Amino acid sequence: MKFNLIFLISIALTVSVFGIDTTEKWDFFEISLNGPSEGNPYKEVQLAANFSNGDKTLEVDGFYDGDGIYKIRFMPETEGEWNYTTSSNIKKLNNKKGKLTCTKNTGNNHGPVRVSNKYHFGYADGHPYKPFGATCYGWFHYGKEYHEKIWNTLAKGPFNKARIMILGFGGHVNNICPEINVFQPDTSGGVDLERFNPVYWDYIEKCLLQLREMGIEADVIIYNGCPDTVEDFYLKYLVSRLSAFRNVWWCMANEYNLDPTKTQEDWDRRGNLLADLDPYDHLLSNHNHPAKEFAWDKDYITHVSCQYADQVFVASLLDKYQKPVINDEPQYEGDHFCHWGNISAKELVHRFWLGAVNGIYTTHGETYSDGKAFEYIGESPERIAFLRKILEEGPAEGINNYKEGEFWQNLAAGDVNKYLLLYFGVHQPGIWYFDFPEEGNFTIELIDPWEMTIEPLGTFSGKINVKLPRKPRQALRAVRIN
Amino acid sequence: MKFNLIFLISIALTVSVFGIDTTEKWDFFEISLNGPSEGNPYKEVQLAANFSNGDKTLEVDGFYDGDGIYKIRFMPETEGEWNYTTSSNIKKLNNKKGKLTCTKNTGNNHGPVRVSNKYHFGYADGHPYKPFGATCYGWFHYGKEYHEKIWNTLAKGPFNKARIMILGFGGHVNNICPEINVFQPDTSGGVDLERFNPVYWDYIEKCLLQLREMGIEADVIIYNGCPDTVEDFYLKYLVSRLSAFRNVWWCMANEYNLDPTKTQEDWDRRGNLLADLDPYDHLLSNHNHPAKEFAWDKDYITHVSCQYADQVFVASLLDKYQKPVINDEPQYEGDHFCHWGNISAKELVHRFWLGAVNGIYTTHGETYSDGKAFEYIGESPERIAFLRKILEEGPAEGINNYKEGEFWQNLAAGDVNKYLLLYFGVHQPGIWYFDFPEEGNFTIELIDPWEMTIEPLGTFSGKINVKLPRKPRQALRAVRIN
Repeated sequence: MKFNLIFLISIALTVSVFGIDTTEKWDFFEISLNGPSEGNPYKEVQLAANFSNGDKTLEVDGFYDGDGIYKIRFMPETEGEWNYTTSSNIKKLNNKKGKLTCTKNTGNNHGPVRVSNKYHFGYADGHPYKPFGATCYGWFHYGKEYHEKIWNTLAKGPFNKARIMILGFGGHVNNICPEINVFQPDTSGGVDLERFNPVYWDYIEKCLLQLREMGIEADVIIYNGCPDTVEDFYLKYLVSRLSAFRNVWWCMANEYNLDPTKTQEDWDRRGNLLADLDPYDHLLSNHNHPAKEFAWDKDYITHVSCQYADQVFVASLLDKYQKPVINDEPQYEGDHFCHWGNISAKELVHRFWLGAVNGIYTTHGETYSDGKAFEYIGESPERIAFLRKILEEGPAEGINNYKEGEFWQNLAAGDVNKYLLLYFGVHQPGIWYFDFPEEGNFTIELIDPWEMTIEPLGTFSGKINVKLPRKPRQALRAVRIN
Repeated sequence: MKFNLIFLISIALTVSVFGIDTTEKWDFFEISLNGPSEGNPYKEVQLAANFSNGDKTLEVDGFYDGDGIYKIRFMPETEGEWNYTTSSNIKKLNNKKGKLTCTKNTGNNHGPVRVSNKYHFGYADGHPYKPFGATCYGWFHYGKEYHEKIWNTLAKGPFNKARIMILGFGGHVNNICPEINVFQPDTSGGVDLERFNPVYWDYIEKCLLQLREMGIEADVIIYNGCPDTVEDFYLKYLVSRLSAFRNVWWCMANEYNLDPTKTQEDWDRRGNLLADLDPYDHLLSNHNHPAKEFAWDKDYITHVSCQYADQVFVASLLDKYQKPVINDEPQYEGDHFCHWGNISAKELVHRFWLGAVNGIYTTHGETYSDGKAFEYIGESPERIAFLRKILEEGPAEGINNYKEGEFWQNLAAGDVNKYLLLYFGVHQPGIWYFDFPEEGNFTIELIDPWEMTIEPLGTFSGKINVKLPRKPRQALRAVRIN
């Protein structure tokens, strides 16, 4: 099955000028206004709107979209009638009023993903969400001709989160596909850092909408390659354009600590500004290189986005930071000469399972020297799909590592009264003991994460043991049935 | 081939009374004296001898061996003539004088193992020694009828160090084979903690001598199960009997931290007393349970004997303690329900290799539920033999982790000017880069640690790359040939 959705997605955007319009909760409402095009509207024109519903008011920044068009995007999070009034330093854009009716969300619209149950995630409407990330980085900076392949890959894959860079691998100058730039080209082959490129932003927004349609959260990496001189200018524009997309997460940087010129105070300033600009409190993190942790305890950080090979160490960050943890680079399946890009599919699948039973989430990446661009040749994605299905069949609220002493060390998640998922990893016990409540009945299944088989072992209650094959990398699932 | 050596070993012990005798360096010389047998000679009789050679004098404690026999054992470490004079609170044992000629060591006698090249070991005569430990613990507490099996197992295996307990698994009362007890039986089925059992000590000494004959160092675990009331009494007797055995190492306890009644001060007192009593400065460590490190920085500690699953973490102890590190329990090959006893053979072999390229040493253990007592059924020993051969073909002084930035992280040991051993572990690079000196030629071989194959890839110099199979757990050896 081919995915011929490239930029043909029909998104029900409500575009309104001074009327009463209807949009569903967590979708977005867009006001479009005509204004001046002379001078540098990106810098010189301020535009915002206050949206109010009952005693709730949100201020939302607008942005210049080129050709004399100004827009304000709003994502209502409360059903009912909303009134808005614009404010601007340009009279023509100032004090425009209108109304909007926000209706109930429908279909696959479950709202933005939020932290839920302390160490886990969930959609705003309560629908379960367990992140299984894909590493896309600069995939959208190579041009539209690759999009069919990209959407097909993502459609076939098990991923519901994509890490993407806004500035691309070339930073603010896109060396891969020069027409795809955050800023407008200047006359010397570089970019004009004082003027954004609406063509690019429209392009990346269509990508975000396509991801949204596919049920994929966009983990937007903001600052990689951003020139210091325009960082706030860029951030404000980015938030004004993208924050109304319910599937957006903010990741301040990829490997933040590889920029030696930035101090913790710089990151705090950026993080606080971002949290302050964003009217919707999207998920926000900062991703590290393993040489140093980030100060994930900061208030503006909603979850840990980290990078380590050792999942048990990563799980220790749950206690340390008291937030959900995603290992967004547990090393990639591949044959690269660098250690971050050459673990076997078996090892990556092993790390996903280790993560699952330790209460953290994990992200995939692939780096084969003979790999296909934007397509996976590896063997891990289908096994990750298998794990995702198992986790989605489990408790909707997520499972924490089951800490019952040394005997169960780092290999089980859940609760002995309800549901347990065990993964033995490099261990190969010949027998396993359970101490279930006497009054409950539990089905136990033996799972082979690599072979993707599930074998029922029977129904049990009370103190029992089950015989296991003497093989590493086996799993058990125990589910209470009454 | 059967090993029918049980207690038939002919050890050239020089037993002397008041004559001039000859013993070779690092073998032992034993003085036997008749004295009182009434009262409690273990407690009441003090006996020692001063041995002098030129301006060097050593004081060596003697011990009561039962039946009115007193012995003093001495291991000369300097060739030439030694004079001795006994001292005792019993006139009959006091002021006895004699001479001893110490000749050059011969054959497989290379002296005791010492720390060498900071993070490594070597025999006192300069002969190389790289520890490959076996976990025997209570093997010698089940009785002589198992010894044929034990010696055969150790003779077939690749191990040159055996961790053995003096007090046995039952502590001071041996519940497994009651006649084998450190202390004499009392009338109530227990033991008399004021009287040692010379029959047991003679038995365990014959085991130490058998190990010595087989080229196996005895890593003697001292305090497990020792009653607090007699700990110094026991330690002094132990050192007086065993310290003249050149193959003895001292390990104060197995999992010292599982005894919550002992403070660091207690261990320091024990460690300092042990180091003070031992005339020969045998290797001395204290083994931990992973819940807590030991204060291996103490002066009386010669090396780290630790227990962790993570070899890269263990290697970090080299820098921390500035001493050689042996991971004496990297978890065992087996199918036990506890994580410490159920890793696969592949995983244990992987940990041995990881240890080797990170500059530490590793110890084997096996715990299969259907295993044979005192025999291995596992698949790791022959692969450990293969690794031992490879390391023994390498630099005699030992190899340290090659720290050349992230690219080489934790996977190589040696020196790019001479010899490199690489182990890729879970990584499967398709290519590997070397930057050899232009003027040197290096042979490179591809090693499969599990299949135990070595495939020559050719002779190279300067900046080169080699293509590798896309398989995890492969190794490379690069040896400079000119």
